[in-house]
Amino acid sequence: MSTKDLSDAEARERLIDLAAEFYDQFAAGEIPRMELPTRTKSNIEYDPEKSVWVYGDRKSTRSANSVSGARKLLKAAYTIEFLANQLDEDRSSTLRELYYLSESWDNEEAQFNGQDESNNLVEDLEIITGVTREDFHMRPEESGATLMGPLKLREQTRRGEREIHCQLDVGEGGYQIPNNPDTIEFLDHDIDFVLCVETGGMRDRLIENGFDDEYNCLIVHLKGQPARATRRITKRLRDELDLPVVVFTDGDPWSYRIYGSVAYGSIKSAHLSEYLATPEAQYVGIRPQDIVDYDLPTDPLSDSDVNALESELEDPRFQTEFWEEQIELQLDIGKKAEQQALASRGLDFVTDTYLPERLETMGVL
Amino acid sequence: MSTKDLSDAEARERLIDLAAEFYDQFAAGEIPRMELPTRTKSNIEYDPEKSVWVYGDRKSTRSANSVSGARKLLKAAYTIEFLANQLDEDRSSTLRELYYLSESWDNEEAQFNGQDESNNLVEDLEIITGVTREDFHMRPEESGATLMGPLKLREQTRRGEREIHCQLDVGEGGYQIPNNPDTIEFLDHDIDFVLCVETGGMRDRLIENGFDDEYNCLIVHLKGQPARATRRITKRLRDELDLPVVVFTDGDPWSYRIYGSVAYGSIKSAHLSEYLATPEAQYVGIRPQDIVDYDLPTDPLSDSDVNALESELEDPRFQTEFWEEQIELQLDIGKKAEQQALASRGLDFVTDTYLPERLETMGVL
Repeated sequence: MSTKDLSDAEARERLIDLAAEFYDQFAAGEIPRMELPTRTKSNIEYDPEKSVWVYGDRKSTRSANSVSGARKLLKAAYTIEFLANQLDEDRSSTLRELYYLSESWDNEEAQFNGQDESNNLVEDLEIITGVTREDFHMRPEESGATLMGPLKLREQTRRGEREIHCQLDVGEGGYQIPNNPDTIEFLDHDIDFVLCVETGGMRDRLIENGFDDEYNCLIVHLKGQPARATRRITKRLRDELDLPVVVFTDGDPWSYRIYGSVAYGSIKSAHLSEYLATPEAQYVGIRPQDIVDYDLPTDPLSDSDVNALESELEDPRFQTEFWEEQIELQLDIGKKAEQQALASRGLDFVTDTYLPERLETMGVL
Repeated sequence: MSTKDLSDAEARERLIDLAAEFYDQFAAGEIPRMELPTRTKSNIEYDPEKSVWVYGDRKSTRSANSVSGARKLLKAAYTIEFLANQLDEDRSSTLRELYYLSESWDNEEAQFNGQDESNNLVEDLEIITGVTREDFHMRPEESGATLMGPLKLREQTRRGEREIHCQLDVGEGGYQIPNNPDTIEFLDHDIDFVLCVETGGMRDRLIENGFDDEYNCLIVHLKGQPARATRRITKRLRDELDLPVVVFTDGDPWSYRIYGSVAYGSIKSAHLSEYLATPEAQYVGIRPQDIVDYDLPTDPLSDSDVNALESELEDPRFQTEFWEEQIELQLDIGKKAEQQALASRGLDFVTDTYLPERLETMGVL
């Protein structure tokens, strides 16, 4: 998958090529089919060259040799036509709109039965064509994360270019990342490292305390499980500006998954790892070790927390010395803590003590 | 409750006054107590002068005549001290930080047992002192809604003033509303009406189609159930700029509650209705009538949908001819529809047909 924004014409061409393949298969008297990598945990593997997890060699075939298979390819053909027209007209739409729009298609057999079906088909098309959803001009339902820090950028909007400095030209809410961050060009910056933060409360604390200003860091609000746009811009900051990236979350298994989705990508979208994942991203905390070291207020682990931790121990992406040690410690102490629990040591503890100490140990400061 | 931003000194003084009352009660040999309006559905009433729903005359008393009552007042006293210091130092914090911070208080009896307790206490203090949480400098965990449209504003940030035009100076993501929108001053505008939109997908559709530009409207993204900051700025746009406000949501009972929280305020925060509610806000859709008129794709009502509709029929705030007719029609057809279902008529249907038709009927256009 290309890490550069494809031109609309190229994206369109790859879609048309796929439709042409169906056509050629028909013409040759073959039953039309699409081949896809099998998208399961057992078929992802580590690519040491790119340092990301990608799909392995196992393949699944979608063939028109059954009624339901034929219907899948019919839907693919209609969707390809819709996307090709959308690119031609320089428009865009959401996944949800695509689902509803299919109700207007002349062939009832081509209409989607539910949004899962249309979402999956768009992912299939991403994988086969090597074009990202963003380059098909498909928007997510919600994006919503923000940046704050010493970065000047240029965004290409439908209404012209906008040059924005992410401290001087924005309010306290920060700069809102657009749905497709590949419309952004980095112009100038004074960033020493990128700090991705899980919760809004902590993001606001860091900004009130002037952490971005004092340490020249760019604060990326992850807003829980980060949207694709947030992961994409984080990756671009790492690659294009050669910046260290650290991830600051709560200290529980769900938050380690948030770190994982920034650093390793997800199983469901392993075809996008090279485009979305930032394997160099380091985890700054909250670590189970911090719960012990800083005597933080905690909640007991629930059964589902324990299950999630055990499943992470078996996940190849978490099989490192650091994570095995931390996860086993957490199972041992039976506790979790939120990042805002640092406030039990005072409102400035996180910016005066915790982050400087941790970042120094990690070699970021 | 004042609709003007109180000065920090005034907010602080009102808190100190409350603490002084406890002191005076002690000095007079009385058992200290706080009196609050009873916060239940049966104790809210319509204030015809202000056109909002407010608490009625029934009162509840928190008295130190029991151990648990005494502990409540002790916690109140510690919280008042914390808030007064926070205002003095021009700092702010989140509700969650307050909860964790209490762990550092010297008297263990004053520490909160859970965040519900500290949240409720802050609401109690809002009601008694007539000062809003924002004026105590308490931030919510997440804000996150955005504005896009012909509005130029000035935001007073901790780092100085920022003048921002909500079309020309922002990216496609729009202007991010800060946690306390009373730091905003409206400088200049070309807005004919304010359009509050529930979903991000529809917000993006309206902006891609240039609806804000063509109809001179300010698009406020509600992001589901709107945050206080979003409701507050909507009210200020109505009151200070004398603009019509319309609310555009999905066509289901949960979305009618979103409209209700913009227009009428909530039972839990009826003490803030005058500060947050926009009683002039009109509902533009999706109406059950639209499901019929435009033959929209629908989902069947679930049991919980039906229960929610029936409970709305009994809610005094929904006892108008419009809502009774629409809710009864919906129960009758047994269907609901999302705003993005309009895409089944094409991606431009909402901006070329639906909204212009509805807004004209409503007298907004």
